[in-house]
Amino acid sequence: MLRELRREAYEANVALPRHGLITLTFGNASAIDRARGIFAIKPSGIDYEDLTPTLMVLVDLEGRIVEGKLNPSSDMPTHRRLYRGFKKVGGIVHTHSIHATAFAQAGRSIPVLGTTHADYFNGEVPVTRKLTEAEIGSAYEWETGSVLVERLLVEDLNPLECPGALVNRHAPFAWAATAADAVEAAVAIECIARLAILSLELAPRLKTLEPALQEKHFRRKHGANAYYGQKPVRGG
Amino acid sequence: MLRELRREAYEANVALPRHGLITLTFGNASAIDRARGIFAIKPSGIDYEDLTPTLMVLVDLEGRIVEGKLNPSSDMPTHRRLYRGFKKVGGIVHTHSIHATAFAQAGRSIPVLGTTHADYFNGEVPVTRKLTEAEIGSAYEWETGSVLVERLLVEDLNPLECPGALVNRHAPFAWAATAADAVEAAVAIECIARLAILSLELAPRLKTLEPALQEKHFRRKHGANAYYGQKPVRGG
Amino acid sequence: MLRELRREAYEANVALPRHGLITLTFGNASAIDRARGIFAIKPSGIDYEDLTPTLMVLVDLEGRIVEGKLNPSSDMPTHRRLYRGFKKVGGIVHTHSIHATAFAQAGRSIPVLGTTHADYFNGEVPVTRKLTEAEIGSAYEWETGSVLVERLLVEDLNPLECPGALVNRHAPFAWAATAADAVEAAVAIECIARLAILSLELAPRLKTLEPALQEKHFRRKHGANAYYGQKPVRGG
Amino acid sequence: MLRELRREAYEANVALPRHGLITLTFGNASAIDRARGIFAIKPSGIDYEDLTPTLMVLVDLEGRIVEGKLNPSSDMPTHRRLYRGFKKVGGIVHTHSIHATAFAQAGRSIPVLGTTHADYFNGEVPVTRKLTEAEIGSAYEWETGSVLVERLLVEDLNPLECPGALVNRHAPFAWAATAADAVEAAVAIECIARLAILSLELAPRLKTLEPALQEKHFRRKHGANAYYGQKPVRGG
Repeated sequence: MLRELRREAYEANVALPRHGLITLTFGNASAIDRARGIFAIKPSGIDYEDLTPTLMVLVDLEGRIVEGKLNPSSDMPTHRRLYRGFKKVGGIVHTHSIHATAFAQAGRSIPVLGTTHADYFNGEVPVTRKLTEAEIGSAYEWETGSVLVERLLVEDLNPLECPGALVNRHAPFAWAATAADAVEAAVAIECIARLAILSLELAPRLKTLEPALQEKHFRRKHGANAYYGQKPVRGG
Repeated sequence: MLRELRREAYEANVALPRHGLITLTFGNASAIDRARGIFAIKPSGIDYEDLTPTLMVLVDLEGRIVEGKLNPSSDMPTHRRLYRGFKKVGGIVHTHSIHATAFAQAGRSIPVLGTTHADYFNGEVPVTRKLTEAEIGSAYEWETGSVLVERLLVEDLNPLECPGALVNRHAPFAWAATAADAVEAAVAIECIARLAILSLELAPRLKTLEPALQEKHFRRKHGANAYYGQKPVRGG
Repeated sequence: MLRELRREAYEANVALPRHGLITLTFGNASAIDRARGIFAIKPSGIDYEDLTPTLMVLVDLEGRIVEGKLNPSSDMPTHRRLYRGFKKVGGIVHTHSIHATAFAQAGRSIPVLGTTHADYFNGEVPVTRKLTEAEIGSAYEWETGSVLVERLLVEDLNPLECPGALVNRHAPFAWAATAADAVEAAVAIECIARLAILSLELAPRLKTLEPALQEKHFRRKHGANAYYGQKPVRGG
Repeated sequence: MLRELRREAYEANVALPRHGLITLTFGNASAIDRARGIFAIKPSGIDYEDLTPTLMVLVDLEGRIVEGKLNPSSDMPTHRRLYRGFKKVGGIVHTHSIHATAFAQAGRSIPVLGTTHADYFNGEVPVTRKLTEAEIGSAYEWETGSVLVERLLVEDLNPLECPGALVNRHAPFAWAATAADAVEAAVAIECIARLAILSLELAPRLKTLEPALQEKHFRRKHGANAYYGQKPVRGG
């Protein structure tokens, strides 16, 4: 069942190593069918080159495996938590991409330092607070999703205008209206992070981008008056 | 019409990812037929692997689409402005190549620190001033071209001896007598930027290259007495 | 003889350049048959693309060549020493991978700064003490193995929970239950090192990962209650 | 004539981009037939993918073109100067490889910080003095060779134990008994430079490698008692 959904999740997963975001098997992507409340996700610990659409695991929003012979990614509960928290999100990507993960490990948000960033994020790429020992000791992966949701809620950020965040000490998660767009957001986050590290090396006290320029770049790609790309406008 | 021009623009566009200058769809190249006042440019938001010569959009110097089913790159007005400002330029390339974009984000020109730089630029790779809020709020992409033209005019720089510059907070633009040479300039700018970042890490107070050596390297590749390459001497 | 063992060693060796861990011919992998006390190792100074399973050299734990027309890797005595010191290790990998080697040259252990690290190591990636002049002047490669064994013994570290270490001024060695898992550990060490350098650049006084999070990540992949991957749990 | 020599030079040239040492057409390799006093060198400004053995230009030690339709590399006089100064050198390689060029631009020698370096160089990778304005203004490329020769002479360094150096403000040159070995030296110099930059970032006051360890690593690969590789011992 849900052949198209499996394929969407499969395509998103295999796109990750093609974009240079993956070391070994670190990372996973999923796609959700909102009408049925079921998402397709990468199986755990399988090499990307061995993936097929039929190996994708189908899971419902209660965390029950609906179909699939393999264990889902150990990060499955994080995806589930995010799908529950961000109702308009259709796809989620997790990677340990190098430069974004360095920001996560350092516990720093990625500041908006140029237009490349503003093309994708209407503000910084936020970092979560650290998980408490209690959160780590109980449903760790679920709680990882919770601190991501909490981080956006706290500033009332729209997940489609902030299509990703960094889990403190861990690595980035990205999300968007579709799994393909979540892959694009994950690529953008890595690129943004790399640019930010080098920019800060060249100008350690660099200020964030002027609000007018942030707004201009974000709005020319997103929202009602977007004029980047072809019609229909591609998602975020 | 203008089959050759479309091909020239196409070849320049697909060369960009091959040289490692492209993330996602950030970047575009164009080529102009000066006799007709028409340039061919990449369509907006299309993956490089899906490009063909016939997908190139033909635009005149008034900004009217002459032929093409797709929207031109959203940076089209910047190209148009540059073609109007730099009369001897035959091709333009825009990328968000990592190291050059880091200099742009940091608001720093790339200083001449070695002969690799001097082989391509008769001086630093300049950075523009920031755009004003008024410029951002009106014809933003056109004004982006204007600050590039202004930057060269202010020092009376010859665009063929300064085949590119950095838009403050944004990224590099490159130009030359042909689109192929503009691609070469874009590759050189990225290489120069990467070398400069590492050189400054090794020697934070490094001075710029001695004028005699700058002049020697630039002149052995460019101008009347050039002796690099084969006859006829390849452009910029 | 030992056709399977040769193949295991061969596969591990050719995986190294595929993972980007190799410059020229720096690096080598071996696999041991514990029942027979014989290990298969790369011949010295041969290009990776010229390797075949039959070119692997078979050596016993006394250092005698059992089979093979070529000289074994000059690092063979280090492998032999490690197999003698770490009884549960089935495969060993040595590389000069860039970022891990930078830590080795700097004489610094790689601190645990994020969960990627904790997924593989139950603690830092330790660096050995320097070899003495006497050790360098006698059985140098054997002594290189000895300082690695000594480094783990001194803190009573389990080689399967600390699947690698850095030889001071030299480069990393990795080991695991199988040669394939040792390759995975070598890849992880390079990734961890690269993340650490960038994280320290972003946060020079970054503290090591909280113990609860270290433990959580290590245990979800390793040991009795591991739940990462498929059953049977993959080693390493 | 000299078909084998042309092929040797050709193979060395096309190996350079394969090893990631080349941007655009920056770089060139040559090989010499000492009996005839003729060397084969890359033609100027030609893309590496368009090279063939027959395009190599044959030049004698007086700088006269013996055979070839194209102009030789503009760096030809530097190669000629080096062949005259270093009598046992059989091949020369010039690149603008990123990390080695950064050291050259910074005017710094590459200090011996680890065994990877000591495997190839019996000491630092030296940087030349700057050329004088008079040298730049006259036979610039010949004088570039002269400062390289001078740099080794001043410390009485054996070119086969110091198979390369950095031209101040410019880039590295490498040399060895054969062109293939000069390619290997060029790869090693880039690797050494990259390791050094990262090591110095991790330990800014890092001291050079202990002499006993330098000697050990250099001698196990080079000279009468070398035991690295197969017999006959590979050069360089």
